[in-house]
Amino acid sequence: MNDTFLRACRGEEVEYTPVWLMRQAGRYLRQYQTVRANVDFLTLCKTPKLAAEVTIQPVEILGVDAAILFSDILIPVEAMGMRLVFSDKQGPILSEPIRNKSAVEKLIIPDVEEDMPFVPETIKILRKELENKVPLIGFSGAPFTLATYMIEGGTSKNFLHTKKMMFQHSGVFSYLMEKLTITVVSYLSSQIKAGAQAVQIFDTWAGMLTPVEYKEFALPYVKKTISELKKEGVPVIYFVNDCAGILKEVRKSGADVTGIDWRIDISDAIKRLGKKMVIQGNLDPCELFLPKEKLEERIKDILWKGESAKGHIFNLGHGVLPETPVENVIAMVEAVHKYGKKE
Amino acid sequence: MNDTFLRACRGEEVEYTPVWLMRQAGRYLRQYQTVRANVDFLTLCKTPKLAAEVTIQPVEILGVDAAILFSDILIPVEAMGMRLVFSDKQGPILSEPIRNKSAVEKLIIPDVEEDMPFVPETIKILRKELENKVPLIGFSGAPFTLATYMIEGGTSKNFLHTKKMMFQHSGVFSYLMEKLTITVVSYLSSQIKAGAQAVQIFDTWAGMLTPVEYKEFALPYVKKTISELKKEGVPVIYFVNDCAGILKEVRKSGADVTGIDWRIDISDAIKRLGKKMVIQGNLDPCELFLPKEKLEERIKDILWKGESAKGHIFNLGHGVLPETPVENVIAMVEAVHKYGKKE
Repeated sequence: MNDTFLRACRGEEVEYTPVWLMRQAGRYLRQYQTVRANVDFLTLCKTPKLAAEVTIQPVEILGVDAAILFSDILIPVEAMGMRLVFSDKQGPILSEPIRNKSAVEKLIIPDVEEDMPFVPETIKILRKELENKVPLIGFSGAPFTLATYMIEGGTSKNFLHTKKMMFQHSGVFSYLMEKLTITVVSYLSSQIKAGAQAVQIFDTWAGMLTPVEYKEFALPYVKKTISELKKEGVPVIYFVNDCAGILKEVRKSGADVTGIDWRIDISDAIKRLGKKMVIQGNLDPCELFLPKEKLEERIKDILWKGESAKGHIFNLGHGVLPETPVENVIAMVEAVHKYGKKE
Repeated sequence: MNDTFLRACRGEEVEYTPVWLMRQAGRYLRQYQTVRANVDFLTLCKTPKLAAEVTIQPVEILGVDAAILFSDILIPVEAMGMRLVFSDKQGPILSEPIRNKSAVEKLIIPDVEEDMPFVPETIKILRKELENKVPLIGFSGAPFTLATYMIEGGTSKNFLHTKKMMFQHSGVFSYLMEKLTITVVSYLSSQIKAGAQAVQIFDTWAGMLTPVEYKEFALPYVKKTISELKKEGVPVIYFVNDCAGILKEVRKSGADVTGIDWRIDISDAIKRLGKKMVIQGNLDPCELFLPKEKLEERIKDILWKGESAKGHIFNLGHGVLPETPVENVIAMVEAVHKYGKKE
């Protein structure tokens, strides 16, 4: 097996810097669009054969060093009892957002095999079909990020409902966060038991918090999640979007790998996270629109700076944009493999 | 005159930490809503008597140490020849976004007295009506932030059109930025000549750039703007939203005061900006929903940490939210004045 990615996660020696991309399965791939033409997004997530198919596409097309389960961040939220629909204009909508204790009380802690059986099934198919070519990453939203969707009822600009609950009804907020922590732990444990060889926890919205708020309202729950997951024995990656201001706190998460967004120089991030942390990132997804030479320059800069961390996994600082030319993504993966060779 | 704010801008000694709030004139004030009930937003901006009236409201209601011109960031963009409308759902919309050289060519460099006479007029009325009670701040968007609106046609999620122009048509982008730099300089110079006693440049979207991108595509133009404005002899404040990752570059802007958002600890910002910089900020606007004791705790923490900079002007890390209870804003201003007293 090409286990370069897994060895990099553990900070072990590798022959080259491994690379994968957030949202590497998706609309920018013609092959994905072909599958998606016949099925809506949520059905695709819930149909193991199809979800496995689109998961494998980028492995074959791009030559990345890891596959990541195709799914949606809100799948466990739906399994907790909320109604989820996708709107073309507004993105995900959760009707009846969580605003009080009785709403939190009604949420169930899902049993993965019962309530989301398609997730472990997809993983089992994938492990077979991947034939150990590359490792498979499972994933979940972090408790805080899932909470924001549940409280806001979707994405948000200011996250005022979330912060009002944190500030004015902290008991209700922590009750929700505890339920989410249990859910995320059991969701990711099931993914690992089904065959996921690493897991990534996405904290897409933690960057909207001040360092003090992050420390009080997000960190304790993701820390608990990660410490529980460590018992499963696979690497845990913690991706925090818009992380530059809170890295000193993020450092305490206990994750094996910290994923960072593009808004910070990777050298600065390594300094703030400490040299004992493996780092993942952090090319600006828009830089995939750069002319080839400029793109290579940016990649080399990140690779060179990544050397000073305990380990480095190359990735974007956020998901691939749907408009991205696939040939540029292929060129990126090739450039990382070429310039990321260790002497 | 209460010139505490102006002295703080210059890093001189003050008796207490001065305070004002971004968007201190606005929907959260009943008195503003009364004015706005009879007139649409753009007309309000363009009617000197009314714009002056809503500018003064927060000075009287909150007891802040500065007034800031009521206007919209896109006023000079409209004056350059773009059609501007406000949609309740989508915010500002600029039809026919700028995507090529001929579109940039068509943009005019506005003559403030000809094309935006209502701005200096409002300022003249204000200086009279404020009777030197507190200083008046003029403002403009930074060249980069104005460019994003012009290229995207409004607000954006990924700023892909902007970055594509930066990366693929850098000549067109710099042509646009040069026109914007001249426009912003003349716009703010006119405001100063009409009576503005300080100016703030808002770089609302610069935080979407990597440090490398910021250094190449935003910093040179704002630096030029600021160095030109310095000749006018009033303090220049440069506010950068989502600044945590790019502060090392922001430090080079040449501004007298750097305004920061709430996503970073003010101590960290002071460290990265250097102790010779006056700092402005940085309470999370959502923290105005905290219970009083907690709010005071946060204010005291920011005030205490602000002591280590050359000077500190208290402010939010972003604009006041429309839902904010006015009594909490009043309590905030009182707390800053109380706990910000120098011994």
